[in-house]
Amino acid sequence: MKVGVIGGGQLGRMMALAGYPLGFSFRFLDPSHESPAGQVAERRATPFEDPRGLDEFAQGLDLATYEFENPPLTAAQRLASRTPYFFPPVRALETVQDRLTQKNFFLSAGIATAPFQRVDSPQDLAQAVNTLGLPAVLKTRRMGYDGKGQAVLREERDLEKGWMALGASPLILEAFIPFTRELSLIAVRARTGETAFYPLAENVHFEGILRLSVAPAPNVAAALQQQAEECARSVFAALDYVGVLAIEFFEHQQQLVANEMATRVHNSGHWTMDGAATSQFENHLRAGAGLPLGSTAARGFTAMINLIGHQPASSDALAIPGAHLHLYGKSARPGRKLGHINLNEATRAELTRAVELTRGLAGVWLPQNVQAADED
Amino acid sequence: MKVGVIGGGQLGRMMALAGYPLGFSFRFLDPSHESPAGQVAERRATPFEDPRGLDEFAQGLDLATYEFENPPLTAAQRLASRTPYFFPPVRALETVQDRLTQKNFFLSAGIATAPFQRVDSPQDLAQAVNTLGLPAVLKTRRMGYDGKGQAVLREERDLEKGWMALGASPLILEAFIPFTRELSLIAVRARTGETAFYPLAENVHFEGILRLSVAPAPNVAAALQQQAEECARSVFAALDYVGVLAIEFFEHQQQLVANEMATRVHNSGHWTMDGAATSQFENHLRAGAGLPLGSTAARGFTAMINLIGHQPASSDALAIPGAHLHLYGKSARPGRKLGHINLNEATRAELTRAVELTRGLAGVWLPQNVQAADED
Repeated sequence: MKVGVIGGGQLGRMMALAGYPLGFSFRFLDPSHESPAGQVAERRATPFEDPRGLDEFAQGLDLATYEFENPPLTAAQRLASRTPYFFPPVRALETVQDRLTQKNFFLSAGIATAPFQRVDSPQDLAQAVNTLGLPAVLKTRRMGYDGKGQAVLREERDLEKGWMALGASPLILEAFIPFTRELSLIAVRARTGETAFYPLAENVHFEGILRLSVAPAPNVAAALQQQAEECARSVFAALDYVGVLAIEFFEHQQQLVANEMATRVHNSGHWTMDGAATSQFENHLRAGAGLPLGSTAARGFTAMINLIGHQPASSDALAIPGAHLHLYGKSARPGRKLGHINLNEATRAELTRAVELTRGLAGVWLPQNVQAADED
Repeated sequence: MKVGVIGGGQLGRMMALAGYPLGFSFRFLDPSHESPAGQVAERRATPFEDPRGLDEFAQGLDLATYEFENPPLTAAQRLASRTPYFFPPVRALETVQDRLTQKNFFLSAGIATAPFQRVDSPQDLAQAVNTLGLPAVLKTRRMGYDGKGQAVLREERDLEKGWMALGASPLILEAFIPFTRELSLIAVRARTGETAFYPLAENVHFEGILRLSVAPAPNVAAALQQQAEECARSVFAALDYVGVLAIEFFEHQQQLVANEMATRVHNSGHWTMDGAATSQFENHLRAGAGLPLGSTAARGFTAMINLIGHQPASSDALAIPGAHLHLYGKSARPGRKLGHINLNEATRAELTRAVELTRGLAGVWLPQNVQAADED
């Protein structure tokens, strides 16, 4: 079974490595010669704007999917019309590409989210701040990732700065949620209708970039996990969804408030590669191929530590007991995701010790307050 | 780090998939267009007899290894002389390529093995049977695998049949050991001198081909595991060994008798892919690259079931809870190893149930008497 993938970054690379053992083969669409997926599978540099090239790309594919959410919709539509099966549905891609559409979708699907206002002018911004109060977060509606295209507005004078920085693009202002922590759910729905949900992961960001996920997240009441799964079920139903879906939540007063979703495999699900019975990558492929889903049960306790901008010596990383190294084949550059280390341990106490050992290695800020010490 | 591998079968394929996350890249030497490794990495069809071609193959490699034990020694030597590091050592390859050399090596290393006699003529055979008694096993000294090149001699009249079938090649006669079961050890030694040992696996063969491994093997006393590890240590020391080593043992009166060894990753170690903290493939690469070894601890209880000659529908295989499918990208042919299923469970009782569910699927004889029911 041949799978075409829009995008050939690390998510595509890990998808290929998860799919080969199932007998899948892959073709990636990525212009970059440094494409991490292109190092382990066929890659084509066809431009998204070339319909004939896309048709050629589609030839012989059994399935097509995407591993980043910003391909032009026209390219996704073209590929969807030329392959036997395309997933997650183009409509899902359309929904997440625009933050305003996505927020309105959350509302319509009955999913709690931070209040928001559309902002197309300085007047809109003033009025939105009037409505939502400060602090608030100004975001571009499109193409934002890893904290890019965002500005936190704390006081009146930040409005002009924010507008100057981002006002060239259509914007959205979101009320600031005084959250306790960030949690994310990786969920999956198969073509057969079967669904499965991983345990919630707790995520720590720094400078807008995910640094650490701990899974299963500590101190998660069954009701909280259930609330997260209900949100995913709503998305599945509303979009007739197939594939892996990631939803990032804020936890606020023991309730979940959806921050954003990604209609693809997700960085906060990388822990599943060594910490769950089946990885998110394998389940994404199983879902699209109409195969039974694999168990999403956690195996022990896992921390995923992103390697950002700096790649430690493999000999140092692998000397840490329980460490699994995942490198993406990229050259180092500040702020770039070069790989991650999964620490997998039998108990939370051991995991906390392993995270301590790794803290220095990652060469970046790592949180001091990882809530990994409580057994559960 | 670029690794050159002699042979591009399923062992090479799984080595590549294990090595990519560590940042390794691969080049395989295999003439077959159906090469399982060639589907996931660079492959060259250079003939073993072409020294210049081998030199070209070696260009730019940081490491070289092999994934089958029957390349011509001259090719291994050539590659070893043209790459910065070659492992396991050529001397190890030389030792295992000839059963007589291997048996003499066991003796010299103090490793218990079945009595044996060299057989080069019908007269030798008669004399060997006289010395060792019947039943006994007549084997070609070279190129035997999966039960090929072997004949069990049970009574006097089998001698002529055996000689007719195999006598064109240099032979060895081995006394038959009335074993309780077959166990195998996967061991690894790194360039740094670090060693690690997986728990013993229990293996069941049918028609000379491995069908099932259960790991950790049930009812293994600490002394038995220790005896196995001592054997591996003797091999490591005698051959200045680096890489993964597999030793197949007969268990006889609670003692281990070495049957044969493989100086490479081994089918009876495939359970480690889903059943151990680190797979044999990753540890083989770590060993050769001078990296710290990964933990060899078992995760739960695992059964590896080979898919021989027949590949079940993926939808059936993946519907089994705890099943991990590993396909090799080969077309079906009787007696051919097409893939394997690893069943991983938290308890032996669950494992026994999962093996039962899988028995029909594998489409081949699977043993009724899997000793997987005892908790330990």
